[in-house]
Amino acid sequence: MTDTTTDVTEHDEYDEYGEHDEHDEHAGPESPEAAEILASARLCVDPELRRAIDSLPGAMRRIARYHFGWEHADGSPAAGHAGKAIRPALVLAAVRALGGDQAMAVRAAAAVELIHNFTLLHDDVIDRDATRRHRPTAWTVFGEPDAILAGDALQALAQLLLAEDPHPGAPAAAARLASCVVELCAGQQADGALERRGPDEVTLDECLAMAEAKTGALLGCACALGALYAGAGRSEVEALDGFGREAGLAFQLIDDVIGIWGDPGHTGKPARADLAARKKSLPVVAALASGTPAAAELAELYGRPSADGDLDRMAHAVETAGGRDWALLHAGDRMSRAINQLAGAVPVPEAAGSLLALAEFVTRRTH
Amino acid sequence: MTDTTTDVTEHDEYDEYGEHDEHDEHAGPESPEAAEILASARLCVDPELRRAIDSLPGAMRRIARYHFGWEHADGSPAAGHAGKAIRPALVLAAVRALGGDQAMAVRAAAAVELIHNFTLLHDDVIDRDATRRHRPTAWTVFGEPDAILAGDALQALAQLLLAEDPHPGAPAAAARLASCVVELCAGQQADGALERRGPDEVTLDECLAMAEAKTGALLGCACALGALYAGAGRSEVEALDGFGREAGLAFQLIDDVIGIWGDPGHTGKPARADLAARKKSLPVVAALASGTPAAAELAELYGRPSADGDLDRMAHAVETAGGRDWALLHAGDRMSRAINQLAGAVPVPEAAGSLLALAEFVTRRTH
Repeated sequence: MTDTTTDVTEHDEYDEYGEHDEHDEHAGPESPEAAEILASARLCVDPELRRAIDSLPGAMRRIARYHFGWEHADGSPAAGHAGKAIRPALVLAAVRALGGDQAMAVRAAAAVELIHNFTLLHDDVIDRDATRRHRPTAWTVFGEPDAILAGDALQALAQLLLAEDPHPGAPAAAARLASCVVELCAGQQADGALERRGPDEVTLDECLAMAEAKTGALLGCACALGALYAGAGRSEVEALDGFGREAGLAFQLIDDVIGIWGDPGHTGKPARADLAARKKSLPVVAALASGTPAAAELAELYGRPSADGDLDRMAHAVETAGGRDWALLHAGDRMSRAINQLAGAVPVPEAAGSLLALAEFVTRRTH
Repeated sequence: MTDTTTDVTEHDEYDEYGEHDEHDEHAGPESPEAAEILASARLCVDPELRRAIDSLPGAMRRIARYHFGWEHADGSPAAGHAGKAIRPALVLAAVRALGGDQAMAVRAAAAVELIHNFTLLHDDVIDRDATRRHRPTAWTVFGEPDAILAGDALQALAQLLLAEDPHPGAPAAAARLASCVVELCAGQQADGALERRGPDEVTLDECLAMAEAKTGALLGCACALGALYAGAGRSEVEALDGFGREAGLAFQLIDDVIGIWGDPGHTGKPARADLAARKKSLPVVAALASGTPAAAELAELYGRPSADGDLDRMAHAVETAGGRDWALLHAGDRMSRAINQLAGAVPVPEAAGSLLALAEFVTRRTH
């Protein structure tokens, strides 16, 4: 990140929500295709999103418009951006990949984006995060009660868009999106519960399951909704869901590596941020579970306040215990699984191109 | 209330949510018909509700089961009751009133009850209420984050029930319920905003609009969903919505009168509770708007800490300024409108019997 006001609180949001909005500003050279796909999805979904938000009653509308970066706190227009639209882009790309007409799936894409933003509003309250997308979070501006209520209203609005959509895929999409919300809630709950436990009381399987629920589920749901709107059969829909989930897990693994070792040349995210916060990220938990002497050292360092040089010692211990290698290998494995799932449902490589470009975009910081 | 542990915080929940659960224990003599209708609705909807809740992942399920009174905080079974099931009873009674088969509308009834309980979970967090249905509120037991997430999951679960319901009325019901949630959120937001303003900065129209959104909307929606599940036309659906809304407003007006003058012989609710809390209830706002000397006295008393006898002076001022008479007359007027709406859609009085009994039940404390 180039913003010098960035603090640890702001970084956490990126880890936790797969929402590394700043990166698109720097993404051009690496992924012109993904950047084009995202810009096109934003153009496509924004009018629907704005129409939906503008249908909300006064105060709810104002909070939502602030959260999306369309207004300042005083209600004056803002040119801020509402995130990278990865989830709407996945919906639309999945529709195209399965031979559907993406113009018919704009409501579904907007619904997924509304659900994503409902969870951001609530998670910021829950995690006491003060900054999102370079601005004060909604609850710091409007108070916790109104931020909670605006989140509730966005969840309802997402379901309203689908319930009023005459598209034959809409009812199944509504059910799938509602199920996904339950999974997102469980994932966010598990995240809090895992963070409250001791570092040696958390298993890797639990952390992977949490990351899948919290990050993978909505990416998978976005792809599945695209498949439903393309009229795909059950196996294609499940394969697309699997593609999004696996790519989401790969993203989370990479993001966790960056949270320790950083990627300053690319994103500016400072190294060691997750270690300073004692986050039970996937490389850390893998290292702790390794049964090595480095694992014991890491557990000891994680259990006490940091002295000078401790953060570097922790990073070294995670690496020595194999946590970094495991995370990178596992991320690669998840991407392979994602690609396999996609290949099963979309045999023509050209048709799958946009989905692959998006998956590579969200995990590209490996390269 | 006969429970001596009852405190002001607990009373507030009754005013705010139309959720005066205790009363059914004492309701037998006055309304045997309503008591039977409610008991029958509870029996009808509970299996569907329990099945839905049991489909939630671990922690979400546990919080929901606690909130519904089915489990203690430690997860052991509890025989507590989950409220009076007024909203499910309205759904089922509306189906019957319009000649539908109530057995086909059980999911819709459960969905409405889930939405009601989602709002209770969040409103308790927002209002810092510590007690509901004689037990510590979920957020005091499980923490605010998990109570927020459990509420989110219940909203999603309600929509999931409707999205998976093959009944032809389900899609329109889903849209209507989602719109209603937006209205409930706006109503709760308005309630907080009105309470933060000075007593002379709040108009009666604003308070009535807030009460309609917060209390009337879901009662209206319950009736409208029943009409949709009976296959009724648009005008019947709107009339049933109007019936529930008007009855909900009548309830709120009566409840606000009880919050000042009490009804100790019946409910045990102590007189003056809303005055002690400086609540901008409808009789108070009507009194303040009267332009009488008593209004000026009331405004002065509301603006400073209470001395001995001040609560009685306030009650007297509200009465002298006409606030009590206005509220009771207006409640009667709303009930008349409710009955007219119902008569337009259900011309056969026998068919409307259950709906009328329920409407009289929720407002019966006038008699």
